[in-house]
Amino acid sequence: MTNPITITRAGSRPSAEAPAEHFTGHVRFDPLFDASAAAPFSGAYVTFEPGARTAWHTHPAGQHLVVTAGVGRVQEWGKPVEEIRAGDVVWVAPGVKHWHGASPAVAMTHIHLTGALAGQGAEWLEKVSDGQYGQ
Amino acid sequence: MTNPITITRAGSRPSAEAPAEHFTGHVRFDPLFDASAAAPFSGAYVTFEPGARTAWHTHPAGQHLVVTAGVGRVQEWGKPVEEIRAGDVVWVAPGVKHWHGASPAVAMTHIHLTGALAGQGAEWLEKVSDGQYGQ
Repeated sequence: MTNPITITRAGSRPSAEAPAEHFTGHVRFDPLFDASAAAPFSGAYVTFEPGARTAWHTHPAGQHLVVTAGVGRVQEWGKPVEEIRAGDVVWVAPGVKHWHGASPAVAMTHIHLTGALAGQGAEWLEKVSDGQYGQ
Repeated sequence: MTNPITITRAGSRPSAEAPAEHFTGHVRFDPLFDASAAAPFSGAYVTFEPGARTAWHTHPAGQHLVVTAGVGRVQEWGKPVEEIRAGDVVWVAPGVKHWHGASPAVAMTHIHLTGALAGQGAEWLEKVSDGQYGQ
């Protein structure tokens, strides 16, 4: 049984470095909340230093991104790179191959909100090459 | 069918005044995204001017609040008022009677992330009296 109301205080959850296996450059996670039975999606701030980005990946249950600071990029496989800025909201439908990250010169922070299918929130693929990133 | 990736640009969705029926004081909604079949929860920034608050209410599927600015208050029915500040995260379990809002002198903004049960995200109850708010 969970508490009726749970307050997780600022500063009580440590920052975490994103795994080098699935990210290029320096990327920091600041967790907000984990998925639960009642609300089966997790949330975290993700901060990408300039030039940093995810690998190509898909989300079995989709993902919302709420850009809270800076300027970044998102690209669907086979489509042009799109610039995203603070205040933009991105929806990535289930199963869509894509990447997201900072712009080359400016960092970017977004909140990710990600559901899971059979316990899996992301399926990771190959890294985004400098050529793909720089297009 | 939805698009593979949808970018909703900052400034493209108008702010909305919260309905006076369920809120006290001036409260503004800035929508982020609506619930969908793949991601059955909605999200919005909610900004409460000093002294403004929700009515008492419950969430059939629970609710996450991510406080992004200022200082506010949250209270579970029968429990003390708790102060919340930028960076705090609140989880309200399904069916728990509560209210949230700004502090008396300082505004508060949070993102709400709210699931729905049978299409309903909130069940609204009586207003929070000045005495309850000021405790």
